[in-house]
Amino acid sequence: MATKSDAAGLLLAQDYITILCHRSPDGDTLGSGYALCHGLRSLGKQARLICADPVPTNLGEILSVCEEQDWQEQFVVAVDVADSKLLGELAEQYGERVDLVVDHHFSNREYGKELWLDPDAAATAEMMTALLLEMGVTLTPEIATCLYTGIATDTGCFRYANTTANTLRTVATLVECGVDAAEINRRLFESKTRERVAVECAALGTLEYYCDGRCAVMTIRSSLLAEHGLGDDDIEGMSGLPRQIVGVWVGVTIREQPDHCRVSVRTTKEADASAICAGFGGGGHLRAGGCSMRGTVDEVKARLVAEIADQLGYKEYK
Amino acid sequence: MATKSDAAGLLLAQDYITILCHRSPDGDTLGSGYALCHGLRSLGKQARLICADPVPTNLGEILSVCEEQDWQEQFVVAVDVADSKLLGELAEQYGERVDLVVDHHFSNREYGKELWLDPDAAATAEMMTALLLEMGVTLTPEIATCLYTGIATDTGCFRYANTTANTLRTVATLVECGVDAAEINRRLFESKTRERVAVECAALGTLEYYCDGRCAVMTIRSSLLAEHGLGDDDIEGMSGLPRQIVGVWVGVTIREQPDHCRVSVRTTKEADASAICAGFGGGGHLRAGGCSMRGTVDEVKARLVAEIADQLGYKEYK
Repeated sequence: MATKSDAAGLLLAQDYITILCHRSPDGDTLGSGYALCHGLRSLGKQARLICADPVPTNLGEILSVCEEQDWQEQFVVAVDVADSKLLGELAEQYGERVDLVVDHHFSNREYGKELWLDPDAAATAEMMTALLLEMGVTLTPEIATCLYTGIATDTGCFRYANTTANTLRTVATLVECGVDAAEINRRLFESKTRERVAVECAALGTLEYYCDGRCAVMTIRSSLLAEHGLGDDDIEGMSGLPRQIVGVWVGVTIREQPDHCRVSVRTTKEADASAICAGFGGGGHLRAGGCSMRGTVDEVKARLVAEIADQLGYKEYK
Repeated sequence: MATKSDAAGLLLAQDYITILCHRSPDGDTLGSGYALCHGLRSLGKQARLICADPVPTNLGEILSVCEEQDWQEQFVVAVDVADSKLLGELAEQYGERVDLVVDHHFSNREYGKELWLDPDAAATAEMMTALLLEMGVTLTPEIATCLYTGIATDTGCFRYANTTANTLRTVATLVECGVDAAEINRRLFESKTRERVAVECAALGTLEYYCDGRCAVMTIRSSLLAEHGLGDDDIEGMSGLPRQIVGVWVGVTIREQPDHCRVSVRTTKEADASAICAGFGGGGHLRAGGCSMRGTVDEVKARLVAEIADQLGYKEYK
């Protein structure tokens, strides 16, 4: 297992460096990747970033994207990529050729030649901030913006339990480098398309309550998404909505699919999401779990609610 | 103007200390106040907190409230109270008797005998953290929770432009003292009543767009609130919704009143909210303004949209 110092040494010794991000890229993989790309270029090196999928529009408006370059790399570094499969279309070309992995995912599959892993880091961008400083890179406003975006993305703007004192001190350093944090946060967290708003409200309109209101179930029909021209990528994060209702311990989202339903469960500390999902062949964490269930929405709902009522100690669940 | 050190000296010299919070108390005034109360008690002093209005339910579940005590105070300190009028019902008894004010509001009216004001602080709780440390108070988990709640409240969970590097480092210190930040943030920022959700969705359903979608207008009818049993206090923050729509520069919320309309305007950096409101006798800041206008919702909407179209350079506003 490599250390931060090892990672810095490896990168400083190279000149033509390709940086890989994971498919369906988010703020952390792209923010960490572009920060590294700018940082390496500022040290006089050739660096480029490659990703199987395009940069999402809202991130493209925040991050300073590096122009593409064409040369033969000497070194390949993957950032925030827990498994070579997550390279998407790039997996075939690069999966076996990663020289260094910088990642914070506990589940990292250790596919590269060297791995610097810090599962206590809230985001790879938190590690990247320390790495760039170790390498002697000056954190320009554009680099700091990339790093801030990565950390804000993975912590839900410093709200989640993964936000540590070190995370906050790292962000303090970035803010001092000239980040327009309020504008980044507005674009990341306070920006929705008209279609997304319409779908959220329609889905919230389906909420049904059980077990004295401790369990709330929301349904997302395929026809609803089709009506507004949205796909599954466009409804990310919606499964957090039912648990937001005051009094709800178990928030369930049922996403209708052609021949089955995808189920997301979010709980407060009073209930165990993974235990609920395990009953249906799924899994997850204490507060967030998921499973896939055969049947219509109504059949799936009945089975889920019966299980949840049982776990919450309700004999009847209405 | 007093310094932090002066404020600490004044408090350390006293034994019976009454702490005043502002009316309609929020997380900052109560968080700062209860942190100070616990801190003073930990130093062996008699301290109590008084507020004209009750502690809101969600804050009561987060903050460790100090039990009431009955004695004659020797010293009165107001926290996060910008004007003695904001003491509400307590103004008559205490308005002229405040010995020390600790506040971060630039607009503070300097009504107390001594004032420690830091307008660069994001929250009074940021100042209070430094003050308690200066006084030698140990930041227990319960005190740190009060202080964290205050800072999170006034920064929108560290999202707003008032969040500085010092704010973040202060929060880092508090996190190290054993705060369950994720749970506090869930209760503060991810918790809505069923009625609030219903009203938000109904209000979002009224959205109308003008000027190529750069202006969005949302209407909140009195009948809607009445239907769900909500008052104006229950819809706080809703005026931020229209600006969240992608492409919107000017988000307008019209709140119908018996004989007029209350108007809130929120803008991105492309438009000036205070200039728009100034045209109707209102005011505010660059990104957030308000005014009160006579007439029906439709009349008010027409005048507002004409003014906004004019300011955005649109000759026709549909």
